[in-house]
Amino acid sequence: MAKEKKLVEAITSMEEDFAQWYTDVVKKAELIEYSNVKGCMILRPNGYAIWENIQKELDRRFKETGVENVYMPLFIPESLLQREKDHVEGFAPEVAWVTHGGMEPLQERLCVRPTSETLFCDMYSNIIQSYRDLPKLYNQWCSVVRWEKTTRPFLRSMEFLWQEGHTAHATEEEAEERTIQMLNVYADFCEQILAIPMIKGKKTDKEKFAGAHSTYTIEALMHDGKALQSGTSHNFGDGFAHAFDIQYTDKDNKLQYVHQTSWGMSTRIIGAIIMVHGDDSGLVLPPRIAPVQVMIVPIAQHKEGVLNKAYELRDRLAKSFSVKVDDSDKSPGWKFSEQEMRGIPTRIEIGPKDLEANQAVIVRRDTREKIVVSLDEIETKLAQVQETMQQEMLERARAHRDAHTYQAANYEEFKELIANKPGFVKAMWCGDEACELKIKEETTATSRCMPFEQEHVADTCVCCGKPAKTMVYWGKAY
Amino acid sequence: MAKEKKLVEAITSMEEDFAQWYTDVVKKAELIEYSNVKGCMILRPNGYAIWENIQKELDRRFKETGVENVYMPLFIPESLLQREKDHVEGFAPEVAWVTHGGMEPLQERLCVRPTSETLFCDMYSNIIQSYRDLPKLYNQWCSVVRWEKTTRPFLRSMEFLWQEGHTAHATEEEAEERTIQMLNVYADFCEQILAIPMIKGKKTDKEKFAGAHSTYTIEALMHDGKALQSGTSHNFGDGFAHAFDIQYTDKDNKLQYVHQTSWGMSTRIIGAIIMVHGDDSGLVLPPRIAPVQVMIVPIAQHKEGVLNKAYELRDRLAKSFSVKVDDSDKSPGWKFSEQEMRGIPTRIEIGPKDLEANQAVIVRRDTREKIVVSLDEIETKLAQVQETMQQEMLERARAHRDAHTYQAANYEEFKELIANKPGFVKAMWCGDEACELKIKEETTATSRCMPFEQEHVADTCVCCGKPAKTMVYWGKAY
Ligand SMILES: [Zn+2]
Ligand SMILES: [Zn+2]
Repeated sequence: MAKEKKLVEAITSMEEDFAQWYTDVVKKAELIEYSNVKGCMILRPNGYAIWENIQKELDRRFKETGVENVYMPLFIPESLLQREKDHVEGFAPEVAWVTHGGMEPLQERLCVRPTSETLFCDMYSNIIQSYRDLPKLYNQWCSVVRWEKTTRPFLRSMEFLWQEGHTAHATEEEAEERTIQMLNVYADFCEQILAIPMIKGKKTDKEKFAGAHSTYTIEALMHDGKALQSGTSHNFGDGFAHAFDIQYTDKDNKLQYVHQTSWGMSTRIIGAIIMVHGDDSGLVLPPRIAPVQVMIVPIAQHKEGVLNKAYELRDRLAKSFSVKVDDSDKSPGWKFSEQEMRGIPTRIEIGPKDLEANQAVIVRRDTREKIVVSLDEIETKLAQVQETMQQEMLERARAHRDAHTYQAANYEEFKELIANKPGFVKAMWCGDEACELKIKEETTATSRCMPFEQEHVADTCVCCGKPAKTMVYWGKAY
Repeated sequence: MAKEKKLVEAITSMEEDFAQWYTDVVKKAELIEYSNVKGCMILRPNGYAIWENIQKELDRRFKETGVENVYMPLFIPESLLQREKDHVEGFAPEVAWVTHGGMEPLQERLCVRPTSETLFCDMYSNIIQSYRDLPKLYNQWCSVVRWEKTTRPFLRSMEFLWQEGHTAHATEEEAEERTIQMLNVYADFCEQILAIPMIKGKKTDKEKFAGAHSTYTIEALMHDGKALQSGTSHNFGDGFAHAFDIQYTDKDNKLQYVHQTSWGMSTRIIGAIIMVHGDDSGLVLPPRIAPVQVMIVPIAQHKEGVLNKAYELRDRLAKSFSVKVDDSDKSPGWKFSEQEMRGIPTRIEIGPKDLEANQAVIVRRDTREKIVVSLDEIETKLAQVQETMQQEMLERARAHRDAHTYQAANYEEFKELIANKPGFVKAMWCGDEACELKIKEETTATSRCMPFEQEHVADTCVCCGKPAKTMVYWGKAY
């Protein structure tokens, strides 16, 4: 029992210190390990397997919309990065520079890609000639590097894994349509698979991507009331096309500039899964993303028939679920703690009495509800339990978000809420960047997005009192 | 017709200039595009899709042996790279160095990983404590960088994609067993999926991996008679464990050093697929690895019912094959050329006359054999054609290799063969590195491997005439 206690006690409680709870969970659930390289993390099997499932799901959804995968170089020559003015200003301060190859200094420095717009543009200028070559719908899965001073596992690290989609279109309308389409792919994936509800909207000019005409975002609310930007989709218009001279001949044989988009989701989203669903026993993974969906824990496994029955059950369930048996020499209590720490959505307990009664006990990770089921119908029951759990996790996350979404009609209310009520604050905005800056400086809250679903919560800007143009979601963010 | 000619004429014939043929094919089949970064290539959708299929197949085979995926940092601090003496000597001359992060110079240089032994060792020293923590069977899919002076698409580039497996074991025997197991995984994959027969063997000390006790290799013969090292598996013994202090307490509570392995396969293997199976019309992909297995080309597609029938057929075949319809406004001849250039294993031609006769024509890419089949049984017939093609491609590759494998009893014969008969030469070796060096210097042939299947082709070393120890495969290599 001492050992069991140790595992649970190893993590700080959420209410006591959320940041410490987070750090404890990523370490104790063996998602990551810190590396010898400052700011770079190691994704261990439990963590990487979640990313593999995210990749599989997203990749399928991308391909269904016609996207094809490519791989671009890791390095960007300095001169290429400088081709688009806003873009280089946004990224140059935070890139890693390669200056030597082998024993020799390079003639031109290369940066390790912080994002690959410039490389894609350079390629598109070579391979796009005619309207027949359009659209180009390319994506790549890779790692990128941004020289961050302070880092946190998944949320902010010097190197992280992501996908970056880059498309080129004949018309402005088609590019805008693709930008929104991919935002919806992200939002649907997060809701359906990760059980995380998203606010979809547009970033203000201040918050948009370096070089974009407009940036769309999906924003989630974490358990502690902070917001997390979970995926972005950018419409570049023809800005990059002008900078990189990407032109095509249209059907009338006239030269036209292409319109471009890019969109990305990263391992950051794993931080969201942890902070939306986790509890004081560790991780809670939605069944649809969990690398292991079922852990079978034999009770009194030394008793005759128990282990064999557990293996038999595993082989049966393996046809429809990702399932393992914990047949180690640890105690059942210790095994429960480990399964809970790792967030495995369901546990099946099976012991000598269950064998006699031809039954087993399913235990839900989120509610800890125990469901006794006959072994004859365990596949069906388990599928139902997982399905219910998936739906209820989404509903709980939505209820939590809604209960932590406030609205403010004036600046006093706004400041009061931001200071005392962790969550989203809906408030009107005049559209002036000065107000956005003032709010950030005085309250540390930032504009998360101008949601597609607009509401009229007041007539005037929450900051300056001038006539309002838009409702904005504000919040403190990761 | 002018246009059709153009596509075919765009590639040099193999007999005329094999190197140019290769370069033409990778470009015209749109596998790669050269990038702005010297020595780095862009993998375009046709090329990357082959790599995705390779990944899927290998990853499944790895996981079946208990391997788990992880992700390690891109960077290695200089001091960490230097921990194992032979290893740093092997790699330091060819790495890219990051010296600046953002605006500031780094206190310690970081190299971009050329391979990740040092990072895995550093992690293992942190996470391995007891015999219960063993074995560790980790793998990662990533890109690595080696500062090469002369580069060729797939075969040698500054950055390339690969997987690197790194395992840690309690005993020497277990490590050796794993080393051979993974070599067999590679060889089986290459034969069964890529239709490329492999010679399995051990590298000489001169040719082994920097820091390894022993290196095993699979070697293939290309169409031009040159060898290609296609995958390697290394047994490190406990050398790295000593350098990185990776110890565990065994069952008797004594400290022991772990024994380690690593093994890798890269995008280089795509070069082998091209050079083993390709012909003067372009790429020929084995059905089991082809991203598109069937291209349906409608004949007289403007005629009523043709396109609809083509789509209907696609939807039917899509249940068992990866299939596309080329419904572009190009001529059928042009479509045939494109499908052949891309190496799509089978083409289905269907036109108004076929519709009347309830039939279609399957055309094999490798032999160009035309098979008229009833639409009622096209799934079965197509599966048979693809299966036959897969087998015959392997047999053809094996026959070609065997026909280009020679043996030499003395140095005169050896030099004569290497100079005039492109292929493998089997010859005896005394085991002395001096002979290996002399052979390389005088003939440019290198020792490819000491094959597991040894033969006694002479009593004495082919070079010095002293008593022979081993039969070696020699050849000029990529
Ligand atoms: Zn205002
Ligand atoms: Zn000799």
